[in-house]
Amino acid sequence: MKTAGPVVEPEGYLEHTLAQAVLERCDALALFTERPGQIHRTFLSPAMAACHAELRRWMAAAGMRVAIDIAGNVRGHYAAEKPMAPRLIIASHLDTVPHAGRYDGVLGVLLGLALVESLNHKPLSFEIEVIGFSDEEGVRFGFPFIGSRAAIQQLQSEHLQLRDADGHSLADALSAFAESTPEAGSAIFPENSAAYLEFHIEQGPVLDHENLSLAVVESIAGQSRGSVTFLGRAGHAGTTPMDLRRDALMAAAEWLLEVEAIATANPSAVATAGHVDCEPGVANTVPGLVRCTLDVRAPDDKQRRRVFERILAAAENTGIRRHIGVSHRLDYDQPSIRLDESLTALAQQALTQTGNQPRRMVSGAGHDAMVIAPYLRSAMIFLRSPDGISHHPDESVLSGDVAAALHAGREFLKLFPSWLESRQLSCTT
Amino acid sequence: MKTAGPVVEPEGYLEHTLAQAVLERCDALALFTERPGQIHRTFLSPAMAACHAELRRWMAAAGMRVAIDIAGNVRGHYAAEKPMAPRLIIASHLDTVPHAGRYDGVLGVLLGLALVESLNHKPLSFEIEVIGFSDEEGVRFGFPFIGSRAAIQQLQSEHLQLRDADGHSLADALSAFAESTPEAGSAIFPENSAAYLEFHIEQGPVLDHENLSLAVVESIAGQSRGSVTFLGRAGHAGTTPMDLRRDALMAAAEWLLEVEAIATANPSAVATAGHVDCEPGVANTVPGLVRCTLDVRAPDDKQRRRVFERILAAAENTGIRRHIGVSHRLDYDQPSIRLDESLTALAQQALTQTGNQPRRMVSGAGHDAMVIAPYLRSAMIFLRSPDGISHHPDESVLSGDVAAALHAGREFLKLFPSWLESRQLSCTT
Repeated sequence: MKTAGPVVEPEGYLEHTLAQAVLERCDALALFTERPGQIHRTFLSPAMAACHAELRRWMAAAGMRVAIDIAGNVRGHYAAEKPMAPRLIIASHLDTVPHAGRYDGVLGVLLGLALVESLNHKPLSFEIEVIGFSDEEGVRFGFPFIGSRAAIQQLQSEHLQLRDADGHSLADALSAFAESTPEAGSAIFPENSAAYLEFHIEQGPVLDHENLSLAVVESIAGQSRGSVTFLGRAGHAGTTPMDLRRDALMAAAEWLLEVEAIATANPSAVATAGHVDCEPGVANTVPGLVRCTLDVRAPDDKQRRRVFERILAAAENTGIRRHIGVSHRLDYDQPSIRLDESLTALAQQALTQTGNQPRRMVSGAGHDAMVIAPYLRSAMIFLRSPDGISHHPDESVLSGDVAAALHAGREFLKLFPSWLESRQLSCTT
Repeated sequence: MKTAGPVVEPEGYLEHTLAQAVLERCDALALFTERPGQIHRTFLSPAMAACHAELRRWMAAAGMRVAIDIAGNVRGHYAAEKPMAPRLIIASHLDTVPHAGRYDGVLGVLLGLALVESLNHKPLSFEIEVIGFSDEEGVRFGFPFIGSRAAIQQLQSEHLQLRDADGHSLADALSAFAESTPEAGSAIFPENSAAYLEFHIEQGPVLDHENLSLAVVESIAGQSRGSVTFLGRAGHAGTTPMDLRRDALMAAAEWLLEVEAIATANPSAVATAGHVDCEPGVANTVPGLVRCTLDVRAPDDKQRRRVFERILAAAENTGIRRHIGVSHRLDYDQPSIRLDESLTALAQQALTQTGNQPRRMVSGAGHDAMVIAPYLRSAMIFLRSPDGISHHPDESVLSGDVAAALHAGREFLKLFPSWLESRQLSCTT
C-alpha cells in the first residue's frame, strides 16, 4: 500500500549521488591529455589548460569565485557568512604521471568541489578554498610539488633554473604563463588560511587488504634513496669454472635477499631494489658489474637510517665473503613529516562518526600535504586503492568509498568550527 | 776466455725467435680494423681484405702457394715432397668480436704460418694447409662459423638468407665477393685432407690458475641456452608493505643462488645468468616482472640437460613458495662434440715430449674445430689466457707460451707421419 507524502531521501543518498558525479568528472578530466589514448597531463601544458577550463565551470556553478594563480594552480574560493573568516583549504593535484590512472590527485580536487556543492550555496562560518595544484608529480621538470611549493613560497631560485626536455627553464615557463594569463593572482596561501585537508587514493594495498574504505594519514614516511654496486670480474660463460668466478650478480642476489629480510624484520619499514643493471649484460658472459637501486622508507627517521645502514653493511659482508668489491651511495635522505595531530584527530573523529574504523596509517608516498604541513596545519584522508594499483591505467576507486569520503568530509566540515575555536581561531567574532 | 767456432743456437732459440715474430704479427694485424682505436674486423669487410693482403705476403714468403676461396678464407698451401700426399690443415679464424683483443683466432693462424716457416722451405712427407677462416664470431650476420661451415659444405640455404645490419643477405655478400674476386677457388676441404689442428687461446682462467702453458682439448661442451621469467606484481616502493609484496626480483634472487648451487654441485658443469631485466625497472617501484637469461654448459649432454632441468625446477619451486608466476624457454640445445681421440693423443704426446704437462681439458666455448670435427679428424691445443681475459682489448698471451706452442707444434709435425701410418694413410707410398 502506497502513501502519498513528502519525498524523503534515504540515508547517504546525497553522498552516493555526489560520488557518481565525482567519478564521472574523473572520467571527463581523463580526456584532457597530451597523449591520445593515455592519460598524460603535465605542468602548464595545453591539456592542463583545457582541464582547468572544465574544472572552473564546475567550481563557478557551485558558487565559488574561481581564479588561477601565477604557479598555474586553479583556485575556487567559497566565501563564508562573514568576511575575513578563517579559511580551510581542500586541495590535491591535477597533473599526472605518464600513462596514468584517472584518480591520483584529481579525485582529491573533485572531492573538495563536491563537498562545496553539497552545501547547496549556503555559506559556512569559515571560508573554503578548493585548489587544483599544477604540479605534484614533477614529470615536466624532473622536480615535484611545484604547485604546492609556490603556495608556501618555497620555490627557490635553483628550482627556477631547472629545464624541461625541450630545454625551457621553469623560470621561462612561469614567465610565459604570466604573460599569457595577466589575470593570474598570487600563489601564496592568504593570511587567514587556518588548515589544509587533502583527500587522496592510498596508492597501496593496505586498506584493500584490511577491507576498509578510508584511513587518516598521521605521517609521511621519510626516505633514503641510493644505490649499491658490486664489482666482480666478467668472464666467458663457457670457459670460467664455477669455482674461479667472481660473479657480481650472485653477490647482488645474496644481498637482495638480505634487503628483504632486514626490512621484514623492521615493522613499518620497507626496502626496495627496483632496478638492477648488469654489465656487460649478455647471456654468455658472467656479470662483472651489477648496480642495484635501493629505496628505504619508514615513519621513524632513526629507524630508517638504521635499516639503510644495516643493508649497506650486509652488502659489504657479502662482498668480503665473495671477493667482490662493493660501493654505495646515498642520493637523498628526506626526513619523515608528521601531519598536525589535532587536525588529524578531527579527521579521525569525522571518520568514526560516519561509521568508519578509526584507522590511522603512514603514507609511504609523498603528497602535497607533506610539503604544506610544516607551514600550515594539515590532515589527509586516504581512500582505498583496489589491489593497491596506482600510477597505472588500471588505477581504480570504489564508488562506495568515494561516498564514504564525502560523508566523512561533510562531517569534517561540521566539526571544523569546534577545532577553530579550540585553536582560538573563532569564526563567531 | 772466448773460443771461435760455429754458432750454436741455444735450446728453444728458434721457437723464441718465431714466437716474437708471431706476437709482432698479431700486433700488425690488429691495425686492420673497421673502427679506428678498436679491433673490429668482420666477414668480407675492407679491413679483412687488407688483413688478407698482409697475411698472403707472409705466407708466400714462407714458400706457400696462397689462394682465397669463395667463402673469403685465406688458404696457404705448403706442398709435400711428393704430390697427392695426405694433408694436415692448421687453421683458425681472422674475424673478431667488436672491440676485441688481438689473439683470439689470429694467433692460431699465425702459429700455423710460423710452423711452416720453421721448416725453412724444406718439404715434408705430407702437405700442410694453413687457413685463416673468414668468420667464426658471427658478428656480421648474427651467425657464426661461416668460413669453416663452407669448408665442410654445411652452409645451408636458410643461412644464405640471413641479413646483416645493412639489410644485405649472406647470399648477396658472397655473390658480390665472387664477382670482385674471380680468382677465388672452392672452399671445400680437398679429398686428401687427413686431419685438422687448431691452436687457440683458452679464453678462460683454468691454465692460468694451474700455471700451465698449454693443454689439449678433448671435447667442446654442449650448451643449453634459454631464459626464465618471474611474474609478480609491481607496486609502489613506499606504499606496499613487505608482507603484501609479490616482488619478482626477490624470487629471481632466490633462484639465482640456486643456479649457482646446482652448477657447483655438478663438477665440470657451468651455469650463468648473464642478463637480468626488471620491469618497470625504476627505483621507486617493486619489480613486477624479471627476466633472466640462462646458459648451461657441460661436456656430458645428459648431465647438462639434467642440470638445466633442475635449475628450471628450482625456479618453479621458488615461484610456488613466493606466489610468483614462472615461465621459461629453451632457445637452443647444442650437443657436445668430442674431438678425435687418436689425434688428440698425438697432440698430447707432442706436449709431453716438449716438457709440458699432459693436461686435457674441455672447451666451454665453441671453436672452428667443433664445426669441423664431425667431418675431419680434429685436435686442438689451448694456450693459457692470462687472467682468463678474452673478447676484450686486455686479452693477452705470454711469449713463453707461444714458444711452447711452437715447440709442441714442431713435435706434432714430427709425430704426424706415424699417426698417418697408423691410420693407413701412409706418406711413403
